[in-house]
Amino acid sequence: MTNRRHFADKKVAAHCSAQHQTLSENDTPARIVPGRARTHDEDVESLDVWGFNDSKFEVNDKGVVALAGSRYDLSGEELPALLPWIRQVLSLPIDPKDIHPYDFPRTVPEPVLNDAFIAALKDILPEEQISQKAETRQRHGHGHTLEEMYAIKYGQLSRIPDVVVYPSEENQVSEIVKAAKKYNACLIPFGGGTSVTEALQCPKTERRMIASVDMRRMNRIEWIDPVNRMACIQAGAVGRHIVEQLADYGFSMGHEPDSIEFSTLGGWIATNASGMKKNKYGNIEDLVLDVTVVTAFGTLERDVALPRESVGTDPRQAVFGSEGNLGIVTSAIVKLFPLPEVQRYGSILFKNFELGMNFMHALSQQHLLPASVRLMDNLQFQFGQALKPRSVGWRSYKSKLEKYYALNLRGFDPDKMVACTLVFEGRAEDVKAQEAMVYKIGAQYGGMKAGGSNGERGYQLTFGIAYVRDFVMNHYILAESFETSVSWSQALLLCQNVKQRVMTEHAERNLPGRPFITCRATQVYDTGVCIYFYLAFSYKGVDNPTQVFNEIEVAAREEILNCGGALSHHHGVGKLRKRFMPNVMSDATLDWNRKTKHALDPNNIFGCENHLTTGVEAEN
Amino acid sequence: MTNRRHFADKKVAAHCSAQHQTLSENDTPARIVPGRARTHDEDVESLDVWGFNDSKFEVNDKGVVALAGSRYDLSGEELPALLPWIRQVLSLPIDPKDIHPYDFPRTVPEPVLNDAFIAALKDILPEEQISQKAETRQRHGHGHTLEEMYAIKYGQLSRIPDVVVYPSEENQVSEIVKAAKKYNACLIPFGGGTSVTEALQCPKTERRMIASVDMRRMNRIEWIDPVNRMACIQAGAVGRHIVEQLADYGFSMGHEPDSIEFSTLGGWIATNASGMKKNKYGNIEDLVLDVTVVTAFGTLERDVALPRESVGTDPRQAVFGSEGNLGIVTSAIVKLFPLPEVQRYGSILFKNFELGMNFMHALSQQHLLPASVRLMDNLQFQFGQALKPRSVGWRSYKSKLEKYYALNLRGFDPDKMVACTLVFEGRAEDVKAQEAMVYKIGAQYGGMKAGGSNGERGYQLTFGIAYVRDFVMNHYILAESFETSVSWSQALLLCQNVKQRVMTEHAERNLPGRPFITCRATQVYDTGVCIYFYLAFSYKGVDNPTQVFNEIEVAAREEILNCGGALSHHHGVGKLRKRFMPNVMSDATLDWNRKTKHALDPNNIFGCENHLTTGVEAEN
Repeated sequence: MTNRRHFADKKVAAHCSAQHQTLSENDTPARIVPGRARTHDEDVESLDVWGFNDSKFEVNDKGVVALAGSRYDLSGEELPALLPWIRQVLSLPIDPKDIHPYDFPRTVPEPVLNDAFIAALKDILPEEQISQKAETRQRHGHGHTLEEMYAIKYGQLSRIPDVVVYPSEENQVSEIVKAAKKYNACLIPFGGGTSVTEALQCPKTERRMIASVDMRRMNRIEWIDPVNRMACIQAGAVGRHIVEQLADYGFSMGHEPDSIEFSTLGGWIATNASGMKKNKYGNIEDLVLDVTVVTAFGTLERDVALPRESVGTDPRQAVFGSEGNLGIVTSAIVKLFPLPEVQRYGSILFKNFELGMNFMHALSQQHLLPASVRLMDNLQFQFGQALKPRSVGWRSYKSKLEKYYALNLRGFDPDKMVACTLVFEGRAEDVKAQEAMVYKIGAQYGGMKAGGSNGERGYQLTFGIAYVRDFVMNHYILAESFETSVSWSQALLLCQNVKQRVMTEHAERNLPGRPFITCRATQVYDTGVCIYFYLAFSYKGVDNPTQVFNEIEVAAREEILNCGGALSHHHGVGKLRKRFMPNVMSDATLDWNRKTKHALDPNNIFGCENHLTTGVEAEN
Repeated sequence: MTNRRHFADKKVAAHCSAQHQTLSENDTPARIVPGRARTHDEDVESLDVWGFNDSKFEVNDKGVVALAGSRYDLSGEELPALLPWIRQVLSLPIDPKDIHPYDFPRTVPEPVLNDAFIAALKDILPEEQISQKAETRQRHGHGHTLEEMYAIKYGQLSRIPDVVVYPSEENQVSEIVKAAKKYNACLIPFGGGTSVTEALQCPKTERRMIASVDMRRMNRIEWIDPVNRMACIQAGAVGRHIVEQLADYGFSMGHEPDSIEFSTLGGWIATNASGMKKNKYGNIEDLVLDVTVVTAFGTLERDVALPRESVGTDPRQAVFGSEGNLGIVTSAIVKLFPLPEVQRYGSILFKNFELGMNFMHALSQQHLLPASVRLMDNLQFQFGQALKPRSVGWRSYKSKLEKYYALNLRGFDPDKMVACTLVFEGRAEDVKAQEAMVYKIGAQYGGMKAGGSNGERGYQLTFGIAYVRDFVMNHYILAESFETSVSWSQALLLCQNVKQRVMTEHAERNLPGRPFITCRATQVYDTGVCIYFYLAFSYKGVDNPTQVFNEIEVAAREEILNCGGALSHHHGVGKLRKRFMPNVMSDATLDWNRKTKHALDPNNIFGCENHLTTGVEAEN
């Protein structure tokens, strides 16, 4: 895997921290101003499916699945076990030649036109920063929920943005907001387009002209301050570019969401994102020191970024999770971490999920969490095995040996065993000490070390797996992920009940085959854990397949809430989960949000209507 | 110091963490419901000065200062060096017999009476939960700024609460808020009364009846959940009781503000507090998982407390730093930490402040921060020496030896050297490793280890020093503390400039003697540091002494802002620092707060007017 790019895999620093610069009374902050991010010609994104254009799962002439291209660990390798395994799990004879065909792009709704607003936009922006193309408009009207991806291939989005604008500086954003206010238009901010909560969908009843404000041109790292460990980054900067550029200067933000290849800093803030290494670096709200936001009545901004303050209610806190309702984030000052001296992967096998979860709990209680520790349940462990390439040589040999040891010598049951992947980062001696402690605790729960390469593979698989959903959709399978967080004592119950509920709901509908429902425990806290589910089933011969899927997903969500789980750990609410807000918030809490929205944006300029119903329309 | 109570000094756990309780699918969360906190008959608080009634600095017959009582390390010991040192620093012949006499209590303003509101309160609360006593009303109309403490002894507070209510349950708080709304009264929440920002002062122009809502009866730990490491605690619980009670079950909140003996959980949240061990445990916003708040239109509350969520804009974030403007916090769910296996103190001497600050910066950059690390400048180091008791035996001998070594053998200049105190907490082996690293880095900056007992003394001195301000006020000396946070590269400049500015301002006013201005670096961050100043000078023969003091403090604050410092790191804004809000926030940010306040509390029930001017009055 040497020649593959690992987006989330930062360079490891030669030294633990940058050379210590001596402080003195005469300091002037030395800020580095990097150039523009390197862009790669081959980094073209697909419009009809997830990810890069060059990477797609396909069935080759031999009837074997392979991921095209050379971008990921999986890329270019035949995956002979995958199709047979899917058939087995879904209990259906999936025929690779039986494709659900689609036309793309399909026709899109006619735009609502507000000539005065368009004229104002043309005054503010050069021509190349405004697009009214149907295909562009459509791409800005959805994220990556399965309903959306199904709709753009087999149906239609009923309302999409009428125009897309690409501001290149903050002042343009301010002017666009003023124009929207003056000419009664609606604005929906757009980052990487990776939302999985329908946050980018346009409200169906919106009659005003809608402009999608695409932040991709505001993608610069404005400065890096190595002494004070901060960087100012524009909101449209994409995760993979942030990682690459900061690494050039020996730093990292430490924020690695699954979507890091495509999602943006502004999107992370607006959705209150969480990264896979949050155990070491924190979640987005821990990483952002300051944020500049253009609102309907001016710009929230500061002259200095301070380590920590107590200066009254901080409006910027309301921007985390605001999902586009309150304004447009244009830049943020974020904390920096030196690249770790070492980065080491690891993995541990446990005999069952309960033992693995107890191991995770023990790690958290003893404050011994590595940068990342994730526990796959048995089905997801099997999925990982099914994604193993037809490779030969040492790796395969070692893998066979391990398998033998696991299955025969220690009584690991292939239908019960689970795998935990570990990523350690830090000073060499600290990592060494931490590894020893972690594996010792693992052994207390009957865990068997399964090596660094399995750990690395498991960790990096996240990026490749993201392409599976659109692949299987071609073969009449709908798949989706959803997540929650829950206190430790409820975690096992929640995992069990959600799976059971999905089985029941699936069975009651007489759907073909069996459903695929699996989970992993990802981000870990002293008080609980994030649980991440995958759900899939065949819709061959099913009427209104996405509606049926949605019903089952809603049932799963109900079960999550019944078990004391969160409505969302890091995906957000958007419109997909909005109906559940009264289940998780008191009336006063919902009122608070409505009242503040109405006070701050009385004309509902930021009218995406995510996670709350403003009632602005009713009052206007 | 064995028989002294260390409020902030938790029991150390016999084992690093509570026995790991195995998770299973059949778990029901096992919550412990503790009894009421133990109260101690001798814990009577003074009304005219800081702290407990039994603890006061006094000059004895021999003309030597001693702290009465037996509560603190310093208690009962003669401090022969203190007065001579104060004389030297202030360059004035302070005569201990020259006392500024005062009458206490003084007459207070007549109450504004709203009979309908009082009748409503009497319907809601039993008689003993309502007080209209002058003395009680006055105590609820101020915190502990020097202007306030001077006013209650030598002047008058111009507006104080008209009634004090003591709700004992959340429902009573809700009913009080409804009554205030119905009968147009004003409510100001009251916790420990330790505010140093005039947050508890009543707006002078408030014509409505003002009720101070004293939360002391809502002081229970409602439950402790050891598996999920959470506790639900009522907002009126006082720090020292929280520490004692949680320790009974092997836990700690890890939050140790200087005011921990008196301040409350609700107050910590409302002021966005920070504790001395935040390096290990976090600040209040990191420690609170959930908060219940009675607002003007209902109660913000949740059924479950979750480790982390992404469920839209979270109104509860606005409660941190809300300073009483938006509602009354009635309880919170907080994270728990197991009591540390070991707790070790340490100290290091450096040749000057700059070396010490570079040491602190290096620790932060290498993520090697102990639970607490604080650096006193030379004057504060001297202050610590001047507070040394006339003691004999080993401690004194060792102290002399160290002094000799420091001054003669290594060229430490007593007028330049500084001291750093350290507190390590955690697993024995981790603490050992951390100590080795920290002292190694200390040595790189020429630091000399000065032992654990000096470190412990320095750390615990905080609690005793708090009594000095009211003692010196008897002797015509005004003293106050103020704090900021600042990025590392500006920190030394800020310390120097603020001291210089105070010197200049003092000189320009022809005040007696010289001012005492000193600082320490306390809470430490990757990106910067909290700086805590003490300012004092004699007002013998000065007209309007508190006004003069205030002018100099304002100048110091201006200098802090000029150097890129925060308006406050953890004290808050209140009314004392309100004038500076436009210097640190954009118009839109201030507007946001005004608009939300107006939307959420249109009648300005929560009318304490801290950190913002609502404009509600103008509009009413």
